[in-house]
Amino acid sequence: MTELSIPETEHRRRTRDLLERADADGYDGLVLFGALNIHYASGMYHLPTERPVALGITDERIEAVVPRLEREHAERGEFLIDEVTTYFEYPQGDPMERVAEMCERLGLADGSIAVDSDGSPARNGYTGPALSELVDAEVGLEAYVTEMRETKSDAEIDLIREASVWANFGHRLLQERIEPGRRPIEVRAEVEAEAVKPMLDALGDRYEMRSWANPMQCLFTTGDVTELPHSMDQTTRIERGDNIVTIVKPTVGGYTTELERTMFVGEVSDEKREYFEIMTESQEIAIDAIGPGVEYAAVEEAVVDYYEEQGVAEYTQHHVGHNIGMEGHERPFLDVDQEGEIRPGELFTVEPGFYVPDVGGFRHSDTVVVTEDGTETLTDYPRDLESLIV
Amino acid sequence: MTELSIPETEHRRRTRDLLERADADGYDGLVLFGALNIHYASGMYHLPTERPVALGITDERIEAVVPRLEREHAERGEFLIDEVTTYFEYPQGDPMERVAEMCERLGLADGSIAVDSDGSPARNGYTGPALSELVDAEVGLEAYVTEMRETKSDAEIDLIREASVWANFGHRLLQERIEPGRRPIEVRAEVEAEAVKPMLDALGDRYEMRSWANPMQCLFTTGDVTELPHSMDQTTRIERGDNIVTIVKPTVGGYTTELERTMFVGEVSDEKREYFEIMTESQEIAIDAIGPGVEYAAVEEAVVDYYEEQGVAEYTQHHVGHNIGMEGHERPFLDVDQEGEIRPGELFTVEPGFYVPDVGGFRHSDTVVVTEDGTETLTDYPRDLESLIV
Repeated sequence: MTELSIPETEHRRRTRDLLERADADGYDGLVLFGALNIHYASGMYHLPTERPVALGITDERIEAVVPRLEREHAERGEFLIDEVTTYFEYPQGDPMERVAEMCERLGLADGSIAVDSDGSPARNGYTGPALSELVDAEVGLEAYVTEMRETKSDAEIDLIREASVWANFGHRLLQERIEPGRRPIEVRAEVEAEAVKPMLDALGDRYEMRSWANPMQCLFTTGDVTELPHSMDQTTRIERGDNIVTIVKPTVGGYTTELERTMFVGEVSDEKREYFEIMTESQEIAIDAIGPGVEYAAVEEAVVDYYEEQGVAEYTQHHVGHNIGMEGHERPFLDVDQEGEIRPGELFTVEPGFYVPDVGGFRHSDTVVVTEDGTETLTDYPRDLESLIV
Repeated sequence: MTELSIPETEHRRRTRDLLERADADGYDGLVLFGALNIHYASGMYHLPTERPVALGITDERIEAVVPRLEREHAERGEFLIDEVTTYFEYPQGDPMERVAEMCERLGLADGSIAVDSDGSPARNGYTGPALSELVDAEVGLEAYVTEMRETKSDAEIDLIREASVWANFGHRLLQERIEPGRRPIEVRAEVEAEAVKPMLDALGDRYEMRSWANPMQCLFTTGDVTELPHSMDQTTRIERGDNIVTIVKPTVGGYTTELERTMFVGEVSDEKREYFEIMTESQEIAIDAIGPGVEYAAVEEAVVDYYEEQGVAEYTQHHVGHNIGMEGHERPFLDVDQEGEIRPGELFTVEPGFYVPDVGGFRHSDTVVVTEDGTETLTDYPRDLESLIV
């Protein structure tokens, strides 16, 4: 792809869509406080801290309130923002008063406003008034951006497709570097350092970082730790006979992908081979089940039926997958209690798995996009056992 | 230090303190939903996702509600939790119903409950009911944990002291690796990979990861980018004549520190030397101003007075510093509008700085703990210009 970011036309479409949703619910405009929501609507990203940042949106114009240290960035002209107001600092500078004044200027202060939160989120020691305390307007909590993010545009899918190319690359390097005796965090850090250079060389000046984290994320756990899918333990050393479960998720243009593999260090017991085959078969069942018009629940049901038949249902710890994009986890979920039907433009991590006590974790994850007539798998890395032995 | 985590006695003290605060405000108990707040109160850390996690605290007992994939971790016996209830997944499993049932068991459902948020935070696509919709109790929003985290115990200070040792080590390595032509993200990733191994070798099995991030964080920006203190651009290459501003912040036992230096690549102009001297002098003024009983505002005022005298006040973009601990930024702030007086056990990053257009950013940051009779600076790395030329 030629561009590695969302074009301004798409930010215009997004804000139009936001305004239509707000209008349909009787609001005069919107004020967003969430960093991801502001990024989604205007293209302007920033490091969220205790300092409030707000975006006001009406049919007439879009304004932002930012702390002094974000001014030049917010004003750089590439974001869908007509005017930036700066306060110096928090707690000084009364940031929420500046937001209330912005509502006045936008003609929202006496009307009704859709917000993503009623005031700035309480993080990093921040406390401040609710917006509803500072304006006479009716303030209503709406999750419009979260809803809109459920389906992706072609530009968004292109970014995730590009990230997926680098997931395959990062995973290859990771597989080469895994060896018994080392701590996962050491191998991982080395691989991320090695992988980010060719990624940036290839993507060139079009690549723009939108967080402080390395664009290459190549995590894994080993041995007993793989039995806990969200364990943070990356210091338990790799041993011969271990299961390894990887989590590789590069970011391009603010969008991420997910590629995960179950691997084995040295000899693989017959028991493990059997579990591995059940897991890979369950992933195929899940991918085959996904398609436009299919109920979300049906995908997990297909996997659960198979797991019950195979006698491993008791070892599952989570549903089949989740949407992905600006966040590593997004709705909708491939879950028996997720209502509704799969739509084109949704992406899913497909990662049915199970965790056998004293044996290990078994989970692959691939990122799949739903098309008009089926699915396309964006991550491409060997799934078979022989290819995954180190 | 012999232990690299907060002892259970301290978690007992914290929950007792929480209950005393809640009782004084007329509550029967507490329910916490924030991952950091749960970690602080019980010692139980977890990766926050769309899946709700809740901790219920009364004089009688402490219960947790967790998703299936956190069960073994939550039950491992080292956390201050008497009973763990598991739901399978979100959206299935009605997690908030499990929380409401926990409130019943704890005798809170008809009473009054202090919460850190009224329900689980809306992240990663989560939406769910407020706790106040599911129980008859009065539910009141309180920031007790955030308030308690303003002053640190000896155990907490010890962890930040240990992290500071590794900040000095990481910064030394970073300084050795900086060279013209390279991208900051590449140098940084290499240094983090190189630095984490000796850190873990030295700290041994006592070191426990509490997030997926590398315990060593050694960021920096270069050239024009240093004029934007929160820029995420780590791809603009290092050039001769650049200013560099570093951000080094390792984590030990869930606690972080902050060490930042302004450095120069090659020749340093007289203009830059002058700005550098003003900056280092301002940091000394700030550190000298800090002490128990001093107003927070007085510290920033001393720096602003000096900057006005030196003619650089217009280039400042932020206040003098912030508390630090479980988060990189915590309250209170060294800010003219921060009310109150500095107390022993508070820590501050002391980082007055300024950013001169077309010249560069000038900021050192050191982490300082307030003692009964003064301060102790925990980070120890050369501050003078000659030591900071690469």
